[in-house]
Amino acid sequence: MNEKTVERIEPRTLKGFRDYLPEAMLPRERLMETARKVYRSFGFAPIDTPTLEYFEVLAGKGSEETDRQMYHFEDQGGRHVGMRFDLTVPLARFVAQHANEIGFPFKRYHIATVWRGEAPQAGRYREFMQCDFDTIGTESIASDIETALVINELLTAIGFERFQIRLNNRKVLNGLLKRFGLLDQSTAVLRAIDKLGKIGPEGVAKELRESTNAAAEQVAAILQMTAVSGTTADVLRQLELLAGDEELAVRGLDELRSVVGGSAAGGIPDGRLAIDVSIARGLDYYTGSIYETFLTDLPTIGSVCSGGRYDDLAKLFTKQHLPGIGASLGLDRLLAAMEELKLLPQAKTPAQVLVVQFDAGSLPYYLTLAKQLRAAGIGVEVFPEPKKVGQQFKYADRRGFAAAVIAGPDEVAAGKVQLKWLAEGSQAEVSVGNGAAELIAQLRAKLGGA
Amino acid sequence: MNEKTVERIEPRTLKGFRDYLPEAMLPRERLMETARKVYRSFGFAPIDTPTLEYFEVLAGKGSEETDRQMYHFEDQGGRHVGMRFDLTVPLARFVAQHANEIGFPFKRYHIATVWRGEAPQAGRYREFMQCDFDTIGTESIASDIETALVINELLTAIGFERFQIRLNNRKVLNGLLKRFGLLDQSTAVLRAIDKLGKIGPEGVAKELRESTNAAAEQVAAILQMTAVSGTTADVLRQLELLAGDEELAVRGLDELRSVVGGSAAGGIPDGRLAIDVSIARGLDYYTGSIYETFLTDLPTIGSVCSGGRYDDLAKLFTKQHLPGIGASLGLDRLLAAMEELKLLPQAKTPAQVLVVQFDAGSLPYYLTLAKQLRAAGIGVEVFPEPKKVGQQFKYADRRGFAAAVIAGPDEVAAGKVQLKWLAEGSQAEVSVGNGAAELIAQLRAKLGGA
Repeated sequence: MNEKTVERIEPRTLKGFRDYLPEAMLPRERLMETARKVYRSFGFAPIDTPTLEYFEVLAGKGSEETDRQMYHFEDQGGRHVGMRFDLTVPLARFVAQHANEIGFPFKRYHIATVWRGEAPQAGRYREFMQCDFDTIGTESIASDIETALVINELLTAIGFERFQIRLNNRKVLNGLLKRFGLLDQSTAVLRAIDKLGKIGPEGVAKELRESTNAAAEQVAAILQMTAVSGTTADVLRQLELLAGDEELAVRGLDELRSVVGGSAAGGIPDGRLAIDVSIARGLDYYTGSIYETFLTDLPTIGSVCSGGRYDDLAKLFTKQHLPGIGASLGLDRLLAAMEELKLLPQAKTPAQVLVVQFDAGSLPYYLTLAKQLRAAGIGVEVFPEPKKVGQQFKYADRRGFAAAVIAGPDEVAAGKVQLKWLAEGSQAEVSVGNGAAELIAQLRAKLGGA
Repeated sequence: MNEKTVERIEPRTLKGFRDYLPEAMLPRERLMETARKVYRSFGFAPIDTPTLEYFEVLAGKGSEETDRQMYHFEDQGGRHVGMRFDLTVPLARFVAQHANEIGFPFKRYHIATVWRGEAPQAGRYREFMQCDFDTIGTESIASDIETALVINELLTAIGFERFQIRLNNRKVLNGLLKRFGLLDQSTAVLRAIDKLGKIGPEGVAKELRESTNAAAEQVAAILQMTAVSGTTADVLRQLELLAGDEELAVRGLDELRSVVGGSAAGGIPDGRLAIDVSIARGLDYYTGSIYETFLTDLPTIGSVCSGGRYDDLAKLFTKQHLPGIGASLGLDRLLAAMEELKLLPQAKTPAQVLVVQFDAGSLPYYLTLAKQLRAAGIGVEVFPEPKKVGQQFKYADRRGFAAAVIAGPDEVAAGKVQLKWLAEGSQAEVSVGNGAAELIAQLRAKLGGA
């Protein structure tokens, strides 16, 4: 094509969409890898489902909002298709379709992209990743306990020490609402309770007065319930008093007790799991345990891992009764939090060592060396061009390499290299005889790794 | 919802799309993890781009066929958008858009889903994964060498020993075509040469006679060129004779020599890299080295990793001249090959140990034990319900667990478990004192891992 005749296209992304550059993608991949590792260690297996589904599979399964936000269109074959807006509807379809092959209990994780054509706003994108794990086909409380254990292990493996898993139970909530005479208005009441953290008890009272027909006494009872606090034992005692002999609430309290006890046996440190009656999680389909997870150093960012138990996952696709429990790790929220808390490394390279190409004639020497370091588990980039060493150092700095290895003709002749630590600027000569054993040892000592 | 009033939706996937069940997804994830690890070890950094792009960004960049197969539609905001059909067009857009931020040379890998509304046929899907790596912004032969090294390391890390990387060079091809007086018909000639493996020399001759105006002498020259064979040194010698002083071919031969020499220094075993003049890779944009990779035990499946050097990646988006080189690992093809060669494990569980829930009262004991094993790096699933032990064993068999750990009240009281190896059916009592050290040692001894 002649330079003059080329009609160029402006390189740009769609509104609400974004590119991930290496410095954003590296921690993102690390987070996903950690999640996969944790899920697997508990026996959750990966699945994947198509991005596109028949429109009728997706439509009407979330809220009116998700229907409106769904990307959907007619494909080349005249089929009305939609792009998934979450991983729960595809899971329901998947489990109904493959029930005989997968067997139950079925534990799966699914890390995949979903799309919602929301009005763009700061920090909200139309394409984002979900990272869900669920156990389908059992009502056993062991799965409720395990959900807490997985959340604990996820956050710990990612590197957090200061976080709290808040636990509640829909049976307790509904049982108490029944006792207060408000069960028929539970959706509105739970929606109000959910806002406690944001609008405080007075705000909740106001909303209850406005959106329900609760009497003053009933509003007071709700506020008394959500004010329950203290140690887990204290909270359980206060809830028992409120519950009296209301059967649903009593069963819910039993479940709470089991999750608290099992979590301790499963290794969750004292104080990390707390019962919080104000967590309602608006979603109507939760029927038992509910979970939210807050970072102690950044609670305002909201829950970073949430979920709960539900009664019947796939009732729109099969008559098979499929209770389950699961939660979702908020990848993007966690990454935003880690950025704000300065927990993210700034490197733009996954390799830690740059081999400088001092002269093109020594390329075989550099390549052999790089091979030896890689075989020892050390990531190495060989600079592709014999540019000025200063320029190569600049490249190394900008990318965030930890060390540079330099060998001119003298070093090559002597079987040596200069090892330069870029942050400190320190430099020393190292032999590369014996399979570069000495260089590997020095790099490992500083970079870590076996 | 009342059972009777539920109108059920048939759970089904779209034609040409598929679900990945755990037994398919586990090796798929393992392959992607291996690829990521190898790419990173050479300093390639991950990026991601949006699934949806402006239609004008994607349209007219591949072939007429890719345009026709592209999923595209008008979004909620009236924008004409398309789903990416490869990772190269998004890379070109990305590099042009972020040139100032990323800096060059820019080495990236991108593992992501692409969509093509092809006519469905056996083994072809409308949604599939691509797994590309590229080095942008340098013409250095060091990157050509590195491309071969990465391919070698990818296949080796995945577990193959018997494979061959076939190398050719477009400068050699075009230089020889020039010498034969066929350069002006190179597209048709290269398309014919590309089919050599399928239709043989006579088929190529026939196609040349039909689709070009090559004289008998010219056809004979082409066949002589593609028949060049022997050791790498032999092939180079024969090509030198054919090239004479044709400058482009001579430069291409220099490049071939450098890639062969560098590959040896970089650790590719003798005989694994072979020059193959019949590899043309129809794509017009290749300008230098080209690569294909064949499994010795299943050559018919075609190349599992292919790529090459190109002159100007992003000329439709920027006037910046951006030469580069890269290749793409054929994930789905490799998985199909591994299945055919029986190289895939059949497990449906990522965890290797099932802790049987003998009785619900001992759940804390099981949970503590599972925690200890996980801390030692052993994946453990605790069965969620206290079902009959026989049923739990059946579950373990079907999922493919390696071992089951059973503890009834007697074992719990004595701080012991029964460790059962499921394939052999052997069983022995093991103490779980001292942080389950003995159990961990026995599991590690058989399962591997540190």
